[in-house]
Amino acid sequence: MKDKKSRLKEKLFEKAVRFGDFTLASGLKSTYYINGKMATLDSEGLNMISEVMLDMLENTECDAVGGPTLGADPMVGGIIALAHNRGRKLTGFIVRKESKDHGTKNLIEGPLEPGMKTIVIEDVATTGGSAKKAIDAVRAFGCDVVGVLVIVDRDQGAKELLNEMGIPFEPIFTKAELGL
Amino acid sequence: MKDKKSRLKEKLFEKAVRFGDFTLASGLKSTYYINGKMATLDSEGLNMISEVMLDMLENTECDAVGGPTLGADPMVGGIIALAHNRGRKLTGFIVRKESKDHGTKNLIEGPLEPGMKTIVIEDVATTGGSAKKAIDAVRAFGCDVVGVLVIVDRDQGAKELLNEMGIPFEPIFTKAELGL
Repeated sequence: MKDKKSRLKEKLFEKAVRFGDFTLASGLKSTYYINGKMATLDSEGLNMISEVMLDMLENTECDAVGGPTLGADPMVGGIIALAHNRGRKLTGFIVRKESKDHGTKNLIEGPLEPGMKTIVIEDVATTGGSAKKAIDAVRAFGCDVVGVLVIVDRDQGAKELLNEMGIPFEPIFTKAELGL
Repeated sequence: MKDKKSRLKEKLFEKAVRFGDFTLASGLKSTYYINGKMATLDSEGLNMISEVMLDMLENTECDAVGGPTLGADPMVGGIIALAHNRGRKLTGFIVRKESKDHGTKNLIEGPLEPGMKTIVIEDVATTGGSAKKAIDAVRAFGCDVVGVLVIVDRDQGAKELLNEMGIPFEPIFTKAELGL
């Protein structure tokens, strides 16, 4: 797993990390930007991200993996398709930003069923606000959230927010591990 | 591949095909509905769909695979992640319904580059309208579209529309092959 992670780190710097003056979706300013989709939509990148996340979930009892569209979508696909090759059945789901009929229901796409134990995934965590929205939707649907996995934690509040909610939070890389 | 297809057919009827009175997104009425996401977000379902599509692309020269959000998203992830295990590099991309800044640019997410030969994928084709929108966006981005693959062709105009546009169209299953 250490080798996979160091190759993945190279891939992130090659494809997804850019330096400059950025204003993030959260409104915060930053000297670097991580476009997770440039790594999650690269065939080797997604394969590595999916395999590392499946390694992280090896001893976790869970039925389903999903996250907020659009960032989580290819990761959900990669993880559940590769899970099958490990003999593991994982249901995928995608959380819409708003429901098709603008109601509070139908935010969840996919064969998720109430009572399932879920993992919420994201590419990059900043304040944790988008993960929280997804968690709220999954809980309203009747499922338990047993953990949150992300590729990179920018260390801007996500960990604290999720800890407060009582949900284990595990990034593949912290900001410090990437030297950012 | 024949075994994969017959197992996939069972999976579609188990997960995605429902009978009743439906009005489709295109406005057409139907006695059956196919919720592709119930199959593409199933770990075995997505694994089979991705492997069959990769088999169909075995002799096709292409650099990238993508399609319209949200239906195509998990398929894009499954296909590019499994392509890597075959030693094949395929870039993924996702076509947004509208750009984040409501302009005509930035409809494409992912590391697609102008000049790439692309395959557009969808779960279910009806009139072909959503495939056409994705093709228009990909062409405007400077890429060639060398084919369209779908899981099911409902036989309601997609084939004719894409043939008119000069783009090869290949469903895993036609409506007739599913006995619908």
